[in-house]
Amino acid sequence: MTGFLFERGDEKMRTYRLVIAYDGTAYQGWQRQANTEMTIQGILESCISKAAGYAVEVNGSGRTDAGVHARGQTASVVLHGKAEDGFFTEKVNKLLPPDIRIREAGLEKNGFHARKSAVGKRYVYQIDTDEKPDVFDRRYTYHFPKKLDIAAMQQAAELLTGTHEFAAYTDKKDETSTKRTIYAIMVGGQGGRINIQYEGTGFLYHMVRILTGTLLEVGMGTRRIESVTIALEAKDRTKVGFLAPARGLFLDEVYYKEKSWKEE
Amino acid sequence: MTGFLFERGDEKMRTYRLVIAYDGTAYQGWQRQANTEMTIQGILESCISKAAGYAVEVNGSGRTDAGVHARGQTASVVLHGKAEDGFFTEKVNKLLPPDIRIREAGLEKNGFHARKSAVGKRYVYQIDTDEKPDVFDRRYTYHFPKKLDIAAMQQAAELLTGTHEFAAYTDKKDETSTKRTIYAIMVGGQGGRINIQYEGTGFLYHMVRILTGTLLEVGMGTRRIESVTIALEAKDRTKVGFLAPARGLFLDEVYYKEKSWKEE
Repeated sequence: MTGFLFERGDEKMRTYRLVIAYDGTAYQGWQRQANTEMTIQGILESCISKAAGYAVEVNGSGRTDAGVHARGQTASVVLHGKAEDGFFTEKVNKLLPPDIRIREAGLEKNGFHARKSAVGKRYVYQIDTDEKPDVFDRRYTYHFPKKLDIAAMQQAAELLTGTHEFAAYTDKKDETSTKRTIYAIMVGGQGGRINIQYEGTGFLYHMVRILTGTLLEVGMGTRRIESVTIALEAKDRTKVGFLAPARGLFLDEVYYKEKSWKEE
Repeated sequence: MTGFLFERGDEKMRTYRLVIAYDGTAYQGWQRQANTEMTIQGILESCISKAAGYAVEVNGSGRTDAGVHARGQTASVVLHGKAEDGFFTEKVNKLLPPDIRIREAGLEKNGFHARKSAVGKRYVYQIDTDEKPDVFDRRYTYHFPKKLDIAAMQQAAELLTGTHEFAAYTDKKDETSTKRTIYAIMVGGQGGRINIQYEGTGFLYHMVRILTGTLLEVGMGTRRIESVTIALEAKDRTKVGFLAPARGLFLDEVYYKEKSWKEE
């Protein structure tokens, strides 16, 4: 069956990059799974395949855990022909549930791959420190009603910046390499809300959430600032902080070379 | 049974004012109903009664429709004794579901009544004009992907400001009085979002949502600006705009005399 999106006779492969926003609350994470239909990748593949008229594969920049959100996840998809205007942002969006949206779609050179071509990522972790959790943002913040020392958190964050072996800051035992570069961690807050922004080459399984739990312990004063680097050297998961819950985490942006990120 | 909140022998009646925030998405509106437990008033009464140890009544500043939200609904409640610190904002809040929260509670003179003592209200209606609805704010905005003329909407809004018979702008046929005073309607917007703020002495059933539907028709250019006042004089519901959906509407604040609102 040939989808309506083809110009007659033009079935040349074309690679598209998608920028995707989703509310992860209802989903079992990004990655397609055999035992559930509630994954972002699975739903995107099913809706794009339906719109195209044949089965397509959607490759994300990386997995996000169950419950994690995205304002700017990216994915690559190869179509057998040229997508007409609005194929992704109108036709596919109409098929998607209201908690998943394709924000942008653009043609890339063949060979582009959302994960392999990525050079960096930005995550934001949102914390609600008010005694009473916000009624409207409760799906998108971690309710942590403690008095936090933001200056101490920022100092610890600076110690974590740079290129390190982050073996202590992951829950996956068998990573091939645990070396990553964090360009910046920014801790900012006002009025009962603290956001922590992470920029780096890439992040290990659970890394951003463990970094966040560790910084929160520093903020509460139950952990010394220097302990965050001692843990790097010890490569020991038990020496760092708790796993902050998924609901506060957003994948905000994935960087690619042509944006000349970090090249200025 | 005597609740723990009483000082020994002190069962003097005391009147409290509550400021309440709620996400109305899951509820059948403010007002208690015999056939459903999903009302804000019903749930507040049940949780406060449980915390107090006896049945209490909660009187709101007014009803909100099914699906309408509040950042600052108010209610009065009479207790048989003095509430200890944190009775409402901690003890009762712990019993409430995460989409209803008591933001503040304060002692008032006996005789205070959240509805009868109110002198004004502020509502905000939130509109998402982007082609693709926002994934995270979809419960709190009306998705209306049209190009809107904000200046025209503001002109129509100014014609509606003042003291008028608003019979055309309600869906209730038998109001005793339809005279209301609107102090201000402010239409503001940027980046795919338009908010309309309404301040006035009070609003009739569906009035804010019908005013919003009418202003949106002006913004689209399908309704002339002057028609909004012609409709006031005609007192004819069919001469004004559509009923904008509940999800975009927030009751933001209820005003009382001691705030010297509009007295400066």
